[in-house]
Amino acid sequence: MNDLFLKALRCENRSRAPIWLMRQAGRYMPQYRAIRAKHPFLDMVHDPELAAEVTMLPVKHLGVDAAILFSDILVIPEALRVGLHFDDGIGPIIDRPLQTAADIDALPKPDIKEALQYVAQAIRLLRPQLKVPLIGFCGAPFTVASYMIEGKSSKDLRTTKQWMMKDPKSFHTLLEKISRLTIDYLEMQIEAGVQAVQIFDSWANVLSHGQFREFSLTYFKMILEGIKSKNVPAILFCRGSSVFASQLAEIQPSAISVDWNADLMQMRKVIPRNIALQGNLDPDVLYAPYDLIKRETKALLKGMKGEPGYIFNLGHGLLPDIPYENVQALVDIVRQQ
Amino acid sequence: MNDLFLKALRCENRSRAPIWLMRQAGRYMPQYRAIRAKHPFLDMVHDPELAAEVTMLPVKHLGVDAAILFSDILVIPEALRVGLHFDDGIGPIIDRPLQTAADIDALPKPDIKEALQYVAQAIRLLRPQLKVPLIGFCGAPFTVASYMIEGKSSKDLRTTKQWMMKDPKSFHTLLEKISRLTIDYLEMQIEAGVQAVQIFDSWANVLSHGQFREFSLTYFKMILEGIKSKNVPAILFCRGSSVFASQLAEIQPSAISVDWNADLMQMRKVIPRNIALQGNLDPDVLYAPYDLIKRETKALLKGMKGEPGYIFNLGHGLLPDIPYENVQALVDIVRQQ
Repeated sequence: MNDLFLKALRCENRSRAPIWLMRQAGRYMPQYRAIRAKHPFLDMVHDPELAAEVTMLPVKHLGVDAAILFSDILVIPEALRVGLHFDDGIGPIIDRPLQTAADIDALPKPDIKEALQYVAQAIRLLRPQLKVPLIGFCGAPFTVASYMIEGKSSKDLRTTKQWMMKDPKSFHTLLEKISRLTIDYLEMQIEAGVQAVQIFDSWANVLSHGQFREFSLTYFKMILEGIKSKNVPAILFCRGSSVFASQLAEIQPSAISVDWNADLMQMRKVIPRNIALQGNLDPDVLYAPYDLIKRETKALLKGMKGEPGYIFNLGHGLLPDIPYENVQALVDIVRQQ
Repeated sequence: MNDLFLKALRCENRSRAPIWLMRQAGRYMPQYRAIRAKHPFLDMVHDPELAAEVTMLPVKHLGVDAAILFSDILVIPEALRVGLHFDDGIGPIIDRPLQTAADIDALPKPDIKEALQYVAQAIRLLRPQLKVPLIGFCGAPFTVASYMIEGKSSKDLRTTKQWMMKDPKSFHTLLEKISRLTIDYLEMQIEAGVQAVQIFDSWANVLSHGQFREFSLTYFKMILEGIKSKNVPAILFCRGSSVFASQLAEIQPSAISVDWNADLMQMRKVIPRNIALQGNLDPDVLYAPYDLIKRETKALLKGMKGEPGYIFNLGHGLLPDIPYENVQALVDIVRQQ
């Protein structure tokens, strides 16, 4: 059993830094594309055997130090029956985005452990096969709420932010509903066998520090408290973690996953040493020639050398058109420290 | 003469905080739209009388404490004959984006003071009419270079970043060419009468801290040194200034204009007291009801109260669909401190 990742999460790793990559089971992999060619995306998410198979791909072919469950942050809105589907080239679409406070009140109250049982099944299939830890995940309430309001990806989340400012009360109601379901969902994942969880607030970067505290941090905290008794490490990620890191540290997650704007070595100086840091190579570096990938990766590893709470990752997810061989090269460089 | 703004830039303001707003002469103003209905955007930029008239609008109708020249950061690429035009609803389009290092070498060597003489004329028309200081401006070389490579607005600047990483040498050549022209351009603006300049790096937020140092900060520094003898205060703005502020402070600008992610009061603690801070209300607050605009504005003013080097502004430019009366309300709140 390779437990570098779990040791680093406890800030107790005395060996090389472990590596895994956000969106490591994704379209940049030829093996993924071969499966995806035969199945719509959501079918892959819903089918425990397919989800488990896809989860294993980067472990088998790249040799990363942790697996992350293949799924999507929008399975909770799907369970809330807002009409989720994926359009190739566009991404997620929600057919019935929330438009009024009454829409929030009218949301169904699903038994999330029943509705998302397929996720638990995938986890149970995976654990016996894995020799590295398995990470579960979910979307952060702010990001999930934003999707439910915008209905699709949005550059500036104008509709969400206007709602948030004009009617903060109903927005909080929505965030709280999502948070409660998310706690149930993470509990289910942990009971099924995940050994760590990561919460993704992909869209937090549109927020001011005050808005982040009120509408994002509050619910990160509620979730951390909700799953505390399960004793599984939790990693917080947001776009904007460079700016919001000191707020995130206040609520004492196991780790903070940092976007690529910040200097991780500088950040290590301000984040308490009992919180691990994860990140933060610019994913665009993976389009560059090998020498640059090697130089940037080595520089990051050198800067974090000897750091018992460091996990190598990107500052954001892998993109579909990143050359596969460059990702393989990256993993090899980190493993050969 | 209202010199609150210039005093604040020297960190010597003992009165209320001055206010001006990025993109204050813009489409959110009915008076602007009336002029714009009669003239294409670039004609307004090229015509000194129209540019001066538009520059005056927010001074006359809103009562801001500084005027900023009505122009565009892309006038330098235009002088480099890359085929600039503006499409309504899309924004700037460059017909012949740079594609190879040879394209950079083949760029013409315009006499920028001659090519952009219309800007100097607008400044000379404006100064006698103004009872507040006049700000000149330019794009930062990284942002201008990105437009010249992408050819239009881009979410992630993938093409630019790939060029930057695959062929940093030619990218530096481009940044240096733009920087030299920019120095000439700012000198011309200063000689014509602007009393401060602001350099806009609107797209710097896609960069990592190391990339920012190499490809953005280097050229900010070259420009500051190039205009130093003119003794006019310079303000640096970038998306990402929350993260890059300590790097910006190293090169000692007169002021740093901060995006809305950061807590300005926290930032004041780490930025030396001889550098003024400008910002940083979230522009989206201006879509909110009056009470929220008032609360957020008062909170920011209270936090920066007694600060001799503080200029009230937004964290980014005003957007076309922001209600005009909300901007008026904002200016009134700040002026009635």
